Amino acid sequence: MTPMSHANPETPGWVVSVRLEPPSLQNNAADADRLGLALQHQLRAACIHMDLSLVAQLPPLFRQANYHVRCVLFRDQDAWVLVHVAPQKQPEILAGLAVDLGTTRVVLRLVDLEKRIILAETAFDNPQVEIGPDILVRIHHADQPGGLAALQQKIVHGINTHVAELCRTCGLNTRRLHLISVAGNTAMSHLLAGIPVHWMIREPYIPAANRFGLIPADHIGLLAAPNARVWIFPGVGSYFGGDLVAGIIHTRMHRSREPVLLVDVGTNAEVVLGNREWLMACAGAAGPALEGGVTRMGTTAGPGVVDRVRIDPHSAAFEIHTIDDLPPRGICGSGIIDLAAQMFLAGMIDIRGKFRPERFPKRFTTENGMHHVTVVPAEQAANGQALCVSQADMDSLVRSKAAMYTILETITGSMGLTLEEIKRFLVAGTFGAFIDPGAAVTIGMLPDLPLACFQPVGNTSLAGATLALFSRDAVAEAAAVRDGITYMELNVNQDFMNRFSAAKFIPHTDKRRFPSVVAPVSPTA
Amino acid sequence: MTPMSHANPETPGWVVSVRLEPPSLQNNAADADRLGLALQHQLRAACIHMDLSLVAQLPPLFRQANYHVRCVLFRDQDAWVLVHVAPQKQPEILAGLAVDLGTTRVVLRLVDLEKRIILAETAFDNPQVEIGPDILVRIHHADQPGGLAALQQKIVHGINTHVAELCRTCGLNTRRLHLISVAGNTAMSHLLAGIPVHWMIREPYIPAANRFGLIPADHIGLLAAPNARVWIFPGVGSYFGGDLVAGIIHTRMHRSREPVLLVDVGTNAEVVLGNREWLMACAGAAGPALEGGVTRMGTTAGPGVVDRVRIDPHSAAFEIHTIDDLPPRGICGSGIIDLAAQMFLAGMIDIRGKFRPERFPKRFTTENGMHHVTVVPAEQAANGQALCVSQADMDSLVRSKAAMYTILETITGSMGLTLEEIKRFLVAGTFGAFIDPGAAVTIGMLPDLPLACFQPVGNTSLAGATLALFSRDAVAEAAAVRDGITYMELNVNQDFMNRFSAAKFIPHTDKRRFPSVVAPVSPTA
Repeated sequence: MTPMSHANPETPGWVVSVRLEPPSLQNNAADADRLGLALQHQLRAACIHMDLSLVAQLPPLFRQANYHVRCVLFRDQDAWVLVHVAPQKQPEILAGLAVDLGTTRVVLRLVDLEKRIILAETAFDNPQVEIGPDILVRIHHADQPGGLAALQQKIVHGINTHVAELCRTCGLNTRRLHLISVAGNTAMSHLLAGIPVHWMIREPYIPAANRFGLIPADHIGLLAAPNARVWIFPGVGSYFGGDLVAGIIHTRMHRSREPVLLVDVGTNAEVVLGNREWLMACAGAAGPALEGGVTRMGTTAGPGVVDRVRIDPHSAAFEIHTIDDLPPRGICGSGIIDLAAQMFLAGMIDIRGKFRPERFPKRFTTENGMHHVTVVPAEQAANGQALCVSQADMDSLVRSKAAMYTILETITGSMGLTLEEIKRFLVAGTFGAFIDPGAAVTIGMLPDLPLACFQPVGNTSLAGATLALFSRDAVAEAAAVRDGITYMELNVNQDFMNRFSAAKFIPHTDKRRFPSVVAPVSPTA
Repeated sequence: MTPMSHANPETPGWVVSVRLEPPSLQNNAADADRLGLALQHQLRAACIHMDLSLVAQLPPLFRQANYHVRCVLFRDQDAWVLVHVAPQKQPEILAGLAVDLGTTRVVLRLVDLEKRIILAETAFDNPQVEIGPDILVRIHHADQPGGLAALQQKIVHGINTHVAELCRTCGLNTRRLHLISVAGNTAMSHLLAGIPVHWMIREPYIPAANRFGLIPADHIGLLAAPNARVWIFPGVGSYFGGDLVAGIIHTRMHRSREPVLLVDVGTNAEVVLGNREWLMACAGAAGPALEGGVTRMGTTAGPGVVDRVRIDPHSAAFEIHTIDDLPPRGICGSGIIDLAAQMFLAGMIDIRGKFRPERFPKRFTTENGMHHVTVVPAEQAANGQALCVSQADMDSLVRSKAAMYTILETITGSMGLTLEEIKRFLVAGTFGAFIDPGAAVTIGMLPDLPLACFQPVGNTSLAGATLALFSRDAVAEAAAVRDGITYMELNVNQDFMNRFSAAKFIPHTDKRRFPSVVAPVSPTA
């Protein structure tokens, strides 16, 4: 995460200290107007909105605080909203909540808006999974009577439960939460806001909103201070949500002189290419080839999950690594990529990804007529069941890697660039955290760039959501980034299917693109 | 009301018709963004805010309405808010409510925002009178636990009850009310908004707010459409409220080339002098001389109340006129002014306003040592009780008329003008509706201008509140007018008390100021 900084202390944040001139017969502006005008002047804002219930607090508060106060504000487009006022000399923490609103997993981060530090963090499975593991199922569920409300209620209840616990660990009341920033995909953002998703998945794929404005937390039902606001990162369209805008903001690729590629593999594979002058984006779900998804394979990365595999090409001895070095209980996506790369280099799969049981027959089994490769024998596995990967899993990986490579090729090609011209290749999410770029290059999922080009950038949604709470500039830039992104619809792209077919070989039909991938050991042995 | 027009059909109103381009793969903006951008373009607005619950309605509505809709908006300062969207071809009335929020009386006017016509009107006594007839009592009551909430609840309940009835008479549901504009004095505006009034009446007299922004109707508890907004006319200070700003807007004095005087005698006497370049204001309550109030005397104008008196200077025969020609049951302020003028001209009071029972002893009685003049003998009165005016009432009138004249003299003098230079003199309210300007000139309450200069302008608060619902320009002008008013504190003015003493004679110590007032008949007879 080295080159991506969090809030620069020089950048203005959302907490502003104001010393007001006390009223007199000569200066008899009303309390709310006095503060509003001072803030307008200090922030160069055209007008400052404040809720009536906040106005009602000002007269006694000003006199108690001797007209020296701290204000929590937020700005969305041209609208500034004052959400809280506290005496300057009161040691009350002004807190905020950053939310990475994932389809399967939700991460909450509690922050101090004034000191701009992270206080605590927690994560939980999206409770909407009970209704549907997959976003499409949830979108269909929303069409049923009460369905949308039920989905909203589940996620709101989930966040409320976990934020209450998170606050408790920090000795805070949830009424200290003044700002909540949310980075999620377009469907999840809609489901949190409780707005219809019906037309999102029907041509021409129109969301209800791409910009959500500043939402009073109580309109959604989120636990927070009485005048707290929720800001949902704006999205670009049904298949390009605020989570990616948050990622762009966090990685600062929109300020880079050289073109940068950002790949986020969550439920979909989403790719942004750009620099400080332009931003081009596309998402895997838009391509029919990605049906089945990149990350459908394997177990979610976690303790005891196989994330690394080494195969001795001569003995076929498997050396595995698990997260936290616990007994193996599953294989995650990056483990399968590693496995595929190592099997390819050991000649155990051919260039189409088909198993070659003749190479080391002892590693293979057949079940219902389908070949499986044994990664961990039963006696070494955590639950006494052998960990296997089937030919179907491998076929799925090949389709996924082909889709990923094709997306990368298509997006760079659309800008007149080749993949070799990309000097910074950012890989977000758990995929980025665990993947071995070398293995991904070997199977032709990622382009054959020097390995130093690949940088894991972690949970960019969460980092972007945090940044929105720390930096006014970040929020302004998010709006500008959103407006400046060109979204490329892959399913209307004619070349895509041809390129996809060529990429369904390991590493590729055109081997010159992967000079670093050495030919597998005795492919015909 | 001749020269003051209501909404000019050329002025833009708050209902805007929008025909959106239907979405396509090429034009795939989100529904809310599609409408927001179209409105921004049509209205030249920087951004349009809309509540989430309104966003949620848009997707099905657009498809049902074939992307042709009517929008109800409002703008306060730089902030545009979209409050309702309806299909273009649906015969649904888009209604609004104008409120004249008086301390003693409240008037409601139901309007059609689109056709810009008045649908119905009703009036009722301010239910806060139960807590205190006088605004000061209410302000003190607000300091008690639950006091402010009780006051707010009373007026909200009163408005809700009467608006429901008003809507019923028009066959409308209150959920058709999208905009509510309110013109009230500063204290009443605060009590409706439920914000503290404690510091308003304590030096340096600071209200909680002079600008109230756009308040969601449900924040106050007013019955209306789900996303309806309440706009309260901005005030200038504790003693100069939004009702007067509404009055200025209605009379268009802020657009006049020549200086215009506007006098509104409600609970206080409030005066505005100005033209299109400047506006100067002061209020009677700020002057200690007005303690007791201009309108404390007499009965509220209404059916059966004496509003006109003629006295034959030779026979002392009284000829009275009552409102609606009903049997006399009281005397209103304008009746007392008429009485004083006629008594002065008949030599029945001297230049200090003291009764001269020696002139026509039969018209006078004495009770507890105080002289009374009999206006209507018992046998002619509605309830069999003689209608009398006491010396104390007359003394009070003399103080009031002196205060009024002094205020007028002070405000014009402060701008380097004399009262004779004022060519348009507007008299608002019931005071303006019933007063005989000639009588008021005779006693020296109003300056001795040609009678054609005086114009009754009716309920300017209600008219201004109505105009705010009909004309975008009117609302923008209200903000500019508010910002441009100079408020003169009378109680810090050194000359005021000297002028006041000189004005406590009928018509004035300086008779040259009232050339049209002929000397009373045989003052010494």
